Amino acid sequence: MDRILITYQYRGSNPAAIADVIRVEQTIEFPIDLVSQWIQETVVGKVEEIISVSAGLHEIVISYNPDVVGGELTQLLNVVWGNTSLLPGIRVIGLELPGAITSKFKGPRFGVTGLRKYFKATTRPLLTTAIKPMGTDAKAMAEMAKILALAGFDAIKDDHSLANQPWSKWEERVKLVSLAVQEANAQINGTCVYSPSLNLPFDQIRDAAYKAKELGAGALLMLPGITGFDSMRSLAEDDELALPIQGHPAMLGTFVTSQTEGIAHGILFGTLMRLAGADISIFPNTGGRFSFTPAQCKEIEVASHSEMQNINPMWIAPAGGMSIERIPEMLEMYGLDTALLIGGALSRGNLAENARRMSEMVSSY
Amino acid sequence: MDRILITYQYRGSNPAAIADVIRVEQTIEFPIDLVSQWIQETVVGKVEEIISVSAGLHEIVISYNPDVVGGELTQLLNVVWGNTSLLPGIRVIGLELPGAITSKFKGPRFGVTGLRKYFKATTRPLLTTAIKPMGTDAKAMAEMAKILALAGFDAIKDDHSLANQPWSKWEERVKLVSLAVQEANAQINGTCVYSPSLNLPFDQIRDAAYKAKELGAGALLMLPGITGFDSMRSLAEDDELALPIQGHPAMLGTFVTSQTEGIAHGILFGTLMRLAGADISIFPNTGGRFSFTPAQCKEIEVASHSEMQNINPMWIAPAGGMSIERIPEMLEMYGLDTALLIGGALSRGNLAENARRMSEMVSSY
Repeated sequence: MDRILITYQYRGSNPAAIADVIRVEQTIEFPIDLVSQWIQETVVGKVEEIISVSAGLHEIVISYNPDVVGGELTQLLNVVWGNTSLLPGIRVIGLELPGAITSKFKGPRFGVTGLRKYFKATTRPLLTTAIKPMGTDAKAMAEMAKILALAGFDAIKDDHSLANQPWSKWEERVKLVSLAVQEANAQINGTCVYSPSLNLPFDQIRDAAYKAKELGAGALLMLPGITGFDSMRSLAEDDELALPIQGHPAMLGTFVTSQTEGIAHGILFGTLMRLAGADISIFPNTGGRFSFTPAQCKEIEVASHSEMQNINPMWIAPAGGMSIERIPEMLEMYGLDTALLIGGALSRGNLAENARRMSEMVSSY
Repeated sequence: MDRILITYQYRGSNPAAIADVIRVEQTIEFPIDLVSQWIQETVVGKVEEIISVSAGLHEIVISYNPDVVGGELTQLLNVVWGNTSLLPGIRVIGLELPGAITSKFKGPRFGVTGLRKYFKATTRPLLTTAIKPMGTDAKAMAEMAKILALAGFDAIKDDHSLANQPWSKWEERVKLVSLAVQEANAQINGTCVYSPSLNLPFDQIRDAAYKAKELGAGALLMLPGITGFDSMRSLAEDDELALPIQGHPAMLGTFVTSQTEGIAHGILFGTLMRLAGADISIFPNTGGRFSFTPAQCKEIEVASHSEMQNINPMWIAPAGGMSIERIPEMLEMYGLDTALLIGGALSRGNLAENARRMSEMVSSY
């Protein structure tokens, strides 16, 4: 299939009428009887199939000409979900992208293989964590990062809420924490990176990414639900920047929490995060502080690791209130291409001891 | 109140426990018993009130220290809805921003008063429409725009789906349509503006805005649900650019369609669009192709026009399948600070005649 294939789950009656609404709304947004035969055939989406699961539940498969996307992620998102997001009872449950689309994107620069090489992690999962909590000053954050880097962690990210609060300004934090991680690396011949958050004003994001590189941070944290998926794509594809990127789910929850509307977990945190270039996709693991089911989490894993033409497989980071005790069970469920992310739980008791314990446990894989 | 006040509607049991989850999740995201008294008091949110509407429906009011936002819209969005978006059964139904927050933003540069002056529209509503459909070439789009500008329209926007499709590339379209609108303005001494869409790659948005200005477009269309609210804020606050901005709801629907999750209509399409600097907020009117109720639409109107410290009132554009026949009823419901937006319906029959009819009807207000 050389067209974009989108499956919309629809709850309601008359799926054929809704299918017609969607294929028009997502393309010409115009009375179809007023457009030429050529536009009807070339530009408007085509209903490929309607599967009625039950009287009130249907799956509508619509295909789109890749040309309606014009090669840009921003317009791809618009075709997938732009105006249809405003209609009740519709959820995107399938998204297949042809080579004509994926070839326009680079995807994860490092991905699974690239980060395995970078962190000399032949088979083991990655060890990641976060510096927190908000209110801590940059110096204390740097001390925390040093302890974690000395314990052998691969990546230490900013807590996603760290920005430019008066208690720790972005540039001072990035300077001190980067330095602390570099000192630890020098001490143990390590490869730890620090990912400062780029949840920053639109006009500062690119410069901040370069500043982070200059200060030796080594990686980036991005919140595409707030700064837009294309802010991540743009930095991921920047050959001069060339830093690994961790994608965080802030604000994106609304797209998945409803069973009747939004975008399926695998498509949002798997396919789209990956197309936009995240090397690691963070999402709330089942049984943590949030409420994803095992099946929804597994769907993310599959979409992150399965074949996708030229787009590299991406690490998954099931997170949100995880503990060291859950590591074996998580690896059983997700496999070893998992970037374990344990945050607050490491601080209960002695941080250095907990970090070492986690590091030892993981190095055995 | 000098703090940020957020009211979360919560469906479920034990609202006190959920209130504690939210106030921590939106700030320190860390076990609260492990942080200092100072962080607990200064950084973590405070539960101000819990109102139980019924056994399973509660309103939780939490206040936050403005310092947790650090003066940035990106982090404000994160505090309002970042990680809580991942929890089921929670919806933001109230948002009050103190002067310490609003003073960090400029809001709509033109707003109601500014655009009334610009378009010499002393009391009447604004007349706006869109060039469409996708698949039409730039020359034909320009001819369409000229007809609409000659009829006395104030603003003509790109259909929100127009990007860089092969049938009409952005720069050629902006050049030809801007020129056509300028020719019409010269002919009738008009003030019509054209708003090209900035739903473009992250690294092209700013340059495209300046290119649009240089080509004489006169205004901009932005899709904050895709490119991020802060992309709009950044351009709205740019004193050198200084162009009116129309905000479009693409992808934002998911935040409002569920009754149990997301963000209330007035907050999303009113408060946040306005804070981010939209001069005109487009949303689907009740009784059109979409499904907002009259009360939800009215909520947007109130949030767009009510007092908000230093932030200008914003035009509302109830749209989505509107017809000329509905104009009197819409003005009755929304008042005259309404930017009427009728698209496809103008093309049924004779475009020039329909446009003139709409223009005449509106000029009588």
